[in-house]
Amino acid sequence: MVELFLLKGTKDHLPDEQILREYIIDIAKKVFHLFGFQPATTPILEPFDILASKYSGGEEILKETYKLTDQGNRELGLRYDLSVPLSRLIGMNPQLKRPFKRYEIGHCFRDGPIKKGRYREFVQMDADIVGVSSMLADAECLALAHRIFAELGLEVFLEVNNRKLLTGILIQAGVPEELIKTTILSIDKMKKIGIPGVREELKLKGISFELAEKIFSYFEYDGPYLEILDQLEPRIQNEIGKKGVQELRELFQYIQIFKIEKDVKLLYSLARGLEIYTGTVFEAFLKESAVIDSSLCGGGRYDKIIGNFLESDVEFPAVGISFGLDTIYDTLSNQKIISPIITDVYLIPIRTLEKTVEIACVLRKNNINSEIDLLNRSLSKNLEYADKNNIPYVLIIGKKDLKKEVVTLRKMKDGEEEKVPLALIIERISQLTKK
Amino acid sequence: MVELFLLKGTKDHLPDEQILREYIIDIAKKVFHLFGFQPATTPILEPFDILASKYSGGEEILKETYKLTDQGNRELGLRYDLSVPLSRLIGMNPQLKRPFKRYEIGHCFRDGPIKKGRYREFVQMDADIVGVSSMLADAECLALAHRIFAELGLEVFLEVNNRKLLTGILIQAGVPEELIKTTILSIDKMKKIGIPGVREELKLKGISFELAEKIFSYFEYDGPYLEILDQLEPRIQNEIGKKGVQELRELFQYIQIFKIEKDVKLLYSLARGLEIYTGTVFEAFLKESAVIDSSLCGGGRYDKIIGNFLESDVEFPAVGISFGLDTIYDTLSNQKIISPIITDVYLIPIRTLEKTVEIACVLRKNNINSEIDLLNRSLSKNLEYADKNNIPYVLIIGKKDLKKEVVTLRKMKDGEEEKVPLALIIERISQLTKK
Repeated sequence: MVELFLLKGTKDHLPDEQILREYIIDIAKKVFHLFGFQPATTPILEPFDILASKYSGGEEILKETYKLTDQGNRELGLRYDLSVPLSRLIGMNPQLKRPFKRYEIGHCFRDGPIKKGRYREFVQMDADIVGVSSMLADAECLALAHRIFAELGLEVFLEVNNRKLLTGILIQAGVPEELIKTTILSIDKMKKIGIPGVREELKLKGISFELAEKIFSYFEYDGPYLEILDQLEPRIQNEIGKKGVQELRELFQYIQIFKIEKDVKLLYSLARGLEIYTGTVFEAFLKESAVIDSSLCGGGRYDKIIGNFLESDVEFPAVGISFGLDTIYDTLSNQKIISPIITDVYLIPIRTLEKTVEIACVLRKNNINSEIDLLNRSLSKNLEYADKNNIPYVLIIGKKDLKKEVVTLRKMKDGEEEKVPLALIIERISQLTKK
Repeated sequence: MVELFLLKGTKDHLPDEQILREYIIDIAKKVFHLFGFQPATTPILEPFDILASKYSGGEEILKETYKLTDQGNRELGLRYDLSVPLSRLIGMNPQLKRPFKRYEIGHCFRDGPIKKGRYREFVQMDADIVGVSSMLADAECLALAHRIFAELGLEVFLEVNNRKLLTGILIQAGVPEELIKTTILSIDKMKKIGIPGVREELKLKGISFELAEKIFSYFEYDGPYLEILDQLEPRIQNEIGKKGVQELRELFQYIQIFKIEKDVKLLYSLARGLEIYTGTVFEAFLKESAVIDSSLCGGGRYDKIIGNFLESDVEFPAVGISFGLDTIYDTLSNQKIISPIITDVYLIPIRTLEKTVEIACVLRKNNINSEIDLLNRSLSKNLEYADKNNIPYVLIIGKKDLKKEVVTLRKMKDGEEEKVPLALIIERISQLTKK
């Protein structure tokens, strides 16, 4: 006999869970549409060479990429994100109009370590704007995130930074060019491990004590973004750093127009790890962090990856945002507020199957979600079933009632029952379910 | 440089296509909900041994199963359908209430030959009822299919049969037990290759001319299901065949109650290949078959697979239906009738970016899907973009207009323009888009 089990890092989602997951997806899609994004999808299976290209996810991700060989001996991989396939799609479709605003909701795979909120098979919900350099696009991504979390009833703050500013600070502090990337990776952890932790890391990376203190002297500012930028700006003389400050000023202007400034803050140690980012980076966190302290979404500007990937001369400025369905689900299910209803009515025939099916047909014709007892069970067992399945209304169709042209409507919430004339069933239930 | 290409049998879906695909999915989901199905999902990655179990898809499918090994040296496979994972899910969740009515929409993979309408990565939309023996469940699946195609504007007929009847006929005709399965596979092709084609196949399979003619003598009836069954019934003496007739009679009674009888016909050579089916089988075809002559959905009753799979004593009667998104998409896109609109309004600022973003925020707050020009393009280029993106309304926000507290609304369909007071924008556009 075959042993039945799930692979580590994969999950079944039974209706209780999946109904909430689809609710999250529906809200994300609604807001993607509100912001003018259109859907486009890419395959889960990609040629391995594309996933492994040096302009793709990099060494770290490649180690975690599921690889396979097909019957024709081609090397394939399962995609580990939605950005690399997007880049390939754009490269193969030069006819696409710009800006190309697309969203994709799809499965990604990483054969990596598992921890809370991290799976090997997971669903990403990405929105990207390709072909726009203006910070207006970055602001739209932030406004989009803000709206999605508002619709989900989650209060979040958005932490924003610009990689150019970060690079500019390190150049100014005198970090040698070859150490800038690795220094950024340590600075990125400042929020989590504090200056002492970063100091320790930098020491191991060969940064002198004096240099480290010089770097930290740039990270002493706090408060509203304008104050921080006003204090930093005079200290930065190099082009890239100046450009970073300018982009952040522009971004925050748009953020004010989008009226989300109270929930956005400048965290100028933020880098978001990956090297692909060239400017704006951002992450969202719950205001009242409970069980989940990982970011609910993240993204940024990656102006070079698509062009590099294609080795073309055309510039492909791009900014994108990625929502992790699983993390958002874990957050919402911990809050236990939402339990969307799928089935509105459960019909119980009492030796009246034919009439019951007829009534169900009329309900369904009127777009009322209806389930019929298929097992000819007792009334009490049926009520138990409706209760367990979170179905709010039950219609009991008995012979006596039918003679009087009525049925019995039971509200599961309080057990209250009423007789409803056959001719008024749709009207009454529509009233109750507000459809 | 990396060569950019898609693997054979996989596809990108650009917005034009994907919008229609999501429209199909939304309709399927709506109807699944109307019929009381709830969503549950299973992973794409399954332990290979589960996919390869002798009670799963069988030899044929196993050859086409993508296999891979993870970093922990575990053998995995990509699922080739949604039924085997459903069986595993039920086996691992004995607490699930019956009937378990679930739907799942998900990617499946087969490393097999590619032809029109057949892909290596494809999306199945399955609805299954586990735990019900009554033909009422089978009838519900047929009514569900009928409603989905009606909502999609596709006129279909449903071909129905019962595997017990088919087996009963062959027993009655005197086919040796060991040849029954292979004979069924040939009879299954009768619609496509006719009696001469089947005769040829049976000959190669070692069925004598006389026996073949005896078999064909059972397949001479045509017309309404009742006539066929009335003529067949007296000729069948064995238990399984009698049971098949009885189940078909019961099924057709329910089909009448569901009022779909005019689009259902008995095709009693139908077997649907797979051995897993134990009773009812069915397929749907376009009434006016144009380019696509493959079935738009198919399914049937598989009372043994789950129990066998678990090697438990508990019976798991089950009936399911599977819709191929790709086939339905190919059909609809050939008809070119539907082009759902995603973005309602395109906003063009003419040196009025700040006010334009503000208006977009208000539109989005009122659930009107709105895109802003992010590239500061000329009016004519912007109108071209809106046109190409299938956006029906454009708001042109100019400085002069703003002084008079109005904006210009342009209907892309006929180029008609009107001035709309700022205070009435929502009202006017809601009127136009009927939101």
